Order: sequence, then C-alpha cells, then structure tokens
Amino acid sequence: MADLKSTFLKVYSVLKEEPLQDPAFEFTDASRQWIERMLDYNVPGGKLNRGLSVIDSYRLLKEGKELTEDEIFLASVLGWCIEWLQAYFLVLDDIMDNSVTRRGQPCWFRVPKVGMIAVNDGVLLRNHIPRILKNHFKGKSYYVDLLDLFNEVEFQTASGQMIDLITTIEGEKDLSKYALSIHRRIVQYKTAYYSFYLPVACALVISGEDLDKHTVVKDILVQMGVYFQVQDDYLDCFGDPETIGKVGTDIEDFKCSWLVVKALELCNEEQNKLLHEAYGKPDPENVAKVKALYKELDFQGVFAKYESQSYAKLNASIEAHPSKSIQAVFKSFLGKIYKRQK
Amino acid sequence: MADLKSTFLKVYSVLKEEPLQDPAFEFTDASRQWIERMLDYNVPGGKLNRGLSVIDSYRLLKEGKELTEDEIFLASVLGWCIEWLQAYFLVLDDIMDNSVTRRGQPCWFRVPKVGMIAVNDGVLLRNHIPRILKNHFKGKSYYVDLLDLFNEVEFQTASGQMIDLITTIEGEKDLSKYALSIHRRIVQYKTAYYSFYLPVACALVISGEDLDKHTVVKDILVQMGVYFQVQDDYLDCFGDPETIGKVGTDIEDFKCSWLVVKALELCNEEQNKLLHEAYGKPDPENVAKVKALYKELDFQGVFAKYESQSYAKLNASIEAHPSKSIQAVFKSFLGKIYKRQK
Repeated sequence: MADLKSTFLKVYSVLKEEPLQDPAFEFTDASRQWIERMLDYNVPGGKLNRGLSVIDSYRLLKEGKELTEDEIFLASVLGWCIEWLQAYFLVLDDIMDNSVTRRGQPCWFRVPKVGMIAVNDGVLLRNHIPRILKNHFKGKSYYVDLLDLFNEVEFQTASGQMIDLITTIEGEKDLSKYALSIHRRIVQYKTAYYSFYLPVACALVISGEDLDKHTVVKDILVQMGVYFQVQDDYLDCFGDPETIGKVGTDIEDFKCSWLVVKALELCNEEQNKLLHEAYGKPDPENVAKVKALYKELDFQGVFAKYESQSYAKLNASIEAHPSKSIQAVFKSFLGKIYKRQK
Repeated sequence: MADLKSTFLKVYSVLKEEPLQDPAFEFTDASRQWIERMLDYNVPGGKLNRGLSVIDSYRLLKEGKELTEDEIFLASVLGWCIEWLQAYFLVLDDIMDNSVTRRGQPCWFRVPKVGMIAVNDGVLLRNHIPRILKNHFKGKSYYVDLLDLFNEVEFQTASGQMIDLITTIEGEKDLSKYALSIHRRIVQYKTAYYSFYLPVACALVISGEDLDKHTVVKDILVQMGVYFQVQDDYLDCFGDPETIGKVGTDIEDFKCSWLVVKALELCNEEQNKLLHEAYGKPDPENVAKVKALYKELDFQGVFAKYESQSYAKLNASIEAHPSKSIQAVFKSFLGKIYKRQK
C-alpha cells in the first residue's frame, strides 16, 4: 500500500509538468512559477483516498490479474484528475466559507499575495482536468465518456454545494429548513458522487464498461457515500479529537448535520425549543446544551442503529449484484469505512 | 438584425429551462428559484455580440444559402453557450476585481444574500455549458470537438486572466513589468480567443469543418481580437464617455493598457519618471498628468498609425485566405470594429 502511494505520487510529478508546458498558452516565467507553486500547495497534500481508489478498483475489476505498468499509469492519471477536482472544490469552498486552515496549512486564499486570485486558481485547477484527459485519452474509444463523466459529477457537486449554501445563508439561520431530505440531498450531491461514485466509474470506463449499464453501481456507491458523511457528522460531535485530528464545530457553525436533523425529528416540544435557541451559537454553554440534548436522545444508540441498518442494507445490495468483481470493489470500500473511528 | 436578436432571445428561454430540469440533480423549489434568478440576472443582459456572431458566421460559411430553422437553432445554442461562458467569467472577475456595477446593475456578488455564493454560481454557469452541449449535440460526430474546443478556450481565457492578475498584484505596483509582449499576451488569451475565435470556431464545427485544418483562421481572428482590445484601451482614455457609455478608469486602476506600455516605449527619461510617479494614483491631478503625457507623445497620431497598419495587415491576411466564405466571415467581423467609436 505504501508502495502504491509512492507510485501514485510519482505520477503527480509527471502530470504537473503538463499544465506548465501546455502548448495552448504562452507562459511567462512568473506565470509558470505561480502555477507550479499553486499546484504543489493544493493538489498532492491530502489523504489521496479518492485517487488511490481508482487503481484499487481497477485491479479488483480485473479479478486480481496483475495490472500492467501502462494500466497502472492510466488509472493513476484518472486518480489524479479526481484529486485535481477535489483541490478545485476545496480552494473555492474555503473562500466561500471564509475558512482558516486546510490540511494543516493556511487556506490558499490566505497565503500572502494570493487573496482573490485564488478564485482564478480554482478555475485553472478545473481547466487542467480536460487538458490532462486530452493528453492521455484522446483517441481512445471511451475518451468522450470520461469527459461526460467528469462534467456530470462536477455539475452534481456544485449543485449539492448550492443547496448547502442557500440553506445556510447568513442572517437567515432557520432550523425549520433542516430535514433529513435536505441533509440527504446535500451529502449525496456535494460529497458522494465525486468521492465514491467517480473513482469506481473511472475504473469501470477504462475497463471498457458502459456506465449506462451500471446505474445500480452508482446507487450503491452513493448510498455508501451518504453513510460515510453521516459517520462524519457523528464523529464531528462524538469522535475523539485526537483520533480524528480536529475539533468539530458543526454545532457552532449551524451546520445541516445528520445529528441536528435527526434531533429535530426525535425531540419533544421543549427540546425543540432548546435546539432552536442554542444551535448555531458560538459560546461553549450553548454548544454544551446541544451536546447534552443529543445524549438525552441517546444518540450513541440512535447512531449505532443507523450504522448497523445501513451496513445490513448495503451488504444486501452488494450480495444481490451479479458481478463478483464489482462486489469485491464494493466490499473494499465498505471495509474501509464500516465502524471507522476517524 | 433586430429580428435575429429576438429569435436568439427566444432560444434563451428554451435553454434556461434545461439546467432547471436537469435529471442529474434533485432540485428543491428554493434551489430552482435561485438558479433561475441567477441565470436571468447574469446571462442575457449583455450586447450578445459573441452569441449572435455564431449565427452570422454560420450563415456566411453557407455562402448565403438560407439556414433551416434547425440550423439556426443549433447555432443559437452554441451562441448561448458562449454567452454562458462570458457570464461565468464576468461573475468571477467582478469578485476578483471587487467591482461595483456590471451592465448597469450591481455586480451579482453585491446583490443582498448572494455574496460569496456567487463563486459557486460562477461554477454552476460553467457547468451548464457541457450539460447544454450534451442535450443538443450528443451523438453528432463533432460532439467531442465542441467539448475540446470549449475546454481549450476556457483554459486559455483563465490563463490570460492569471497573467493579468499576477502582473498587477496589489502592493507590487511595478510599471517595469509592463511591456508590449505582456500586454499582447494578456489581451490575446484573456479576450481574443473566447470573443473572436470561439464564435467562428463553433460555426466551423457545425459546418462540418476540422478545426485542426484552420489554424490560419485562428491566427487572424486572434489578431483581430488584439486590435479590438487596443481600441478598447484607447477609447478608455480618449473616447467620448457619452458614446462609450462609461468613464474610463484604466489610469487610476494601474491597468496594463496598450497606452501605458506604448508610452513606456516612446518616452524619454523625464517622461518615464513622471509616468512612474503618476500612473495608478486615484487623484484627478495625477490622472491629468498621465493624459497630458499621452497627448505630448501624440497618442492620437500613434494610435491612428497603429489602427491603419493593423487594418492593412489584417486585410492582407484576409485576402490571402483561399476560401471566399471564410473571407466573408472575417470581413463581417472587421467591418464591425474598424474605426469604431464605441
């Protein structure tokens, strides 16, 4: 696995040269330096789970047959396209959320002399994806399918982000807008498509599969992505900060978290009043009140039940899938996230 | 012409329904309303020159043979894709430049409750383009060429914007960075490709032409786009505010304008000192000093010479082109901009 990661990182150093040498533009020295620094700052510093899982899935789809060097390279290129996509979303999200740090360093727009140029840098990150795809896949029969796939998933992600943004507009903090149906839509579109479906879809495409025949695969992976995000919401409040590597602030930030929408569903009138008063306030007392309410509602139990039900449902869907190799892909994903503590 | 514009506007009302009914996303009522308002605010309110010139060029390429209703519709769809692209650039540029008004109304990010959500709206505008292209061109032999074309031109525009941004970073106002070669690169990439080349390239693609065989067409249109932008820079300072519809502020804004790079080239040591002291200052006295310097250097004459030379050079390139119908396209563009006062 460490080996796979180092192979994958080597492909980054190949790919990052491409936007710096693109014949469609006449770079100045200053602009080439800018792009290189921007890429190194924003693209390779994450956990790389999404990118690596393209290679992983491709291998499983090949039923354990060793991948050739070429095949590993092409899967890595698609993996990096997803990491580029992620970098693009994060650079712009941090501007919209006015965030401070990302992956242990200041958000890109907070770096001196960057500022709002970060908006255009986000756009450039996005533009690099079709350039990379063209360099490596133009001429292949599935080239247009890759373009369509990235376009569709990007559209879904931005649409999910839109609901998230307009549901939580500053100055209109209104808990009554929050419901499981909204929560599900936000996490499904904003996170699940690009984090869970896209890596497997890329692996299917380079395996020669027609994505239109795999809507069940999409449904199962999106379900898994929703489950993953619910875990994230739960860990934000009940996880060990040491283990998850951050102190959660969903309550302070008035986030449309699974916990608050579930609480709104389960609470009595009095608890509802408390929730409306305390949720989204920055002071520790109000945060503590909300956490106490979650405990009162037995959220450890509610979550454990959600987790085991989701797991059972996902497993049933997986077992019902006719392809053993696709089952293996699902199981690999599910194994990595079931009962995760971080 | 008024007739063509009203036909074109009718196509907008058809197209704008597509992102609102896109089956790849589950809209809420609030999100559908948000998108509709955002589209109406940002997409159709410009002069529509770029969009209309797709239809115009397509007609000329057909050598005057009447276009069928279907053909007009498809050319209009591509015209609107360019207008969508333009809206995307403008929404984001206004954020980066911290602008106040656009097309006679507040910039979108300044509209109450929009703010930084405008970043994601820009992304959505961009995402609508491949969705619209898919709805109308998927299955056509040239579908992938359209995707490649829009991707390449968007990359070029964002790259041009990057040089513009990093050349004029706040706190590093440094005239010595300004030179004709930088100015040419900025205007060529930031404006010429999407405003001049893209409309004609769209018309060529739907006429069944292979763009790889038309690099000369690209070169000529890009040259024309550079000439257009030099006119723009000239009119910003010497045009009649009544006629051009705005009061130019390039001097105050420390813009890398053709006038200042040309002045740097032509001035003596003393004038150079004055320019370094006065350029980019907000007060009227300094602006007046710069304008006086431009007049001292006989910029009316310098520009007239540039204009007639550009015109002669463009005409020679046009006459040398083997296709009469493509010549007609060039002449239509050039006729619209030569010696324009607005």
